[in-house]
Amino acid sequence: MTLTACTFDVFGTVVDWRGSIVAEGDAVWRARGVDVDWPAFADAWRGLYQPAMERVRSGNTDFVKLDVLHRENLEHVLKDFGVTGLSEADKAELNKVWHRLQPWPDSVAGLTRLKQKYIIAPLSNGNISLIVNMAKAGGLPWDVVLGAEVAGQYKPHPDAYLNSAKALDLPPDQCMLIAAHNEDLAAAQQQGFKTAFVARPTEHGSSQSVDLEAKYEFDYIATDFNDLASQVGC
Amino acid sequence: MTLTACTFDVFGTVVDWRGSIVAEGDAVWRARGVDVDWPAFADAWRGLYQPAMERVRSGNTDFVKLDVLHRENLEHVLKDFGVTGLSEADKAELNKVWHRLQPWPDSVAGLTRLKQKYIIAPLSNGNISLIVNMAKAGGLPWDVVLGAEVAGQYKPHPDAYLNSAKALDLPPDQCMLIAAHNEDLAAAQQQGFKTAFVARPTEHGSSQSVDLEAKYEFDYIATDFNDLASQVGC
Repeated sequence: MTLTACTFDVFGTVVDWRGSIVAEGDAVWRARGVDVDWPAFADAWRGLYQPAMERVRSGNTDFVKLDVLHRENLEHVLKDFGVTGLSEADKAELNKVWHRLQPWPDSVAGLTRLKQKYIIAPLSNGNISLIVNMAKAGGLPWDVVLGAEVAGQYKPHPDAYLNSAKALDLPPDQCMLIAAHNEDLAAAQQQGFKTAFVARPTEHGSSQSVDLEAKYEFDYIATDFNDLASQVGC
Repeated sequence: MTLTACTFDVFGTVVDWRGSIVAEGDAVWRARGVDVDWPAFADAWRGLYQPAMERVRSGNTDFVKLDVLHRENLEHVLKDFGVTGLSEADKAELNKVWHRLQPWPDSVAGLTRLKQKYIIAPLSNGNISLIVNMAKAGGLPWDVVLGAEVAGQYKPHPDAYLNSAKALDLPPDQCMLIAAHNEDLAAAQQQGFKTAFVARPTEHGSSQSVDLEAKYEFDYIATDFNDLASQVGC
């Protein structure tokens, strides 16, 4: 079927979550009392991401927005890193660093090209407000915000992909997931999505060992969003 | 509170539903067997809109997308106008005329100005795919698609407004509804939204008698979207 919608993983694929958190930590939060090893802090915070969502995916808890899971996880990480004395307002503001993640250098240009021919939408586990605030800050030109909050389920649960396609009234094979993560793409492919792998070899820092290349057969393998735009005729 | 998000009624406020349906009817559908009085046909189709949504708002039926209600209503209108012989595919395509409604002349320019300072989002009873396809066709630069499908309820039910504000994680008074309809604005104001009335005096044709002016006290009264943009500092 004809490709109609390009849907995107966001954390790591569109934006540099680790680099952005480390940069804000060093520039803002160290002086406000979070004097930690920021790369390690970011990794620890992100490390609690999958277990938190798994409580929802498994059916053990009702769907809650990622902001809420991030906030609960922040409490654990602050404790583990021995950070005390932050006010509730400080914690709320720090938690919103996920709304302020910066795009990779090619993201805005590539999305702008893809938008000329396709519907472009985040298919992220991030909640609507997180994705909207990030887009306003970083200039990401989404047509519509899809993803976990609209679908009512977190990736890689099948419903996250299928309900996103349904929201567009498209069969899955008219949708493509673009991601830097092999397992996300494999899950989308399983539900009938087309797939494009874009490597982000420094998502986890300079010594990254995962997702350096495509492990499965995807429809496209691209070096960045501009390369992808060229490959799909934009 | 500071205004953060401008949310918009769409049918009649952003796009000219009646003029668009009449134009497509004359240009396309008359030759395909729908040889009717197109202004009357459009009015009759739209006339079934509120009763259909009321079945959802009253709790008598579960939420279904507006595309589905439009399709059911189309069946009635075709029968009332004595149109026979359309295939299922024809009917599906005609029903999607609501995805192809054209913006008023000031809509894209005004939205583009408002987007520089505010989150701009449809808060329409139209479903996500309808609003996305309309935006792609007409160049409407939404930041995010809110409205009935995301909120799970049709306007003017309170949940349609409140759940849209919640999706942005904003208190209602940081959101403004812009509409050409007094009752929609009154319902939003009741839930704490700021309000802006923009008259669309030919929405219902040249002899329109309703919504020619603001009936209640709204925060802004504007002649069009460009005027509104100027009034709110864009």
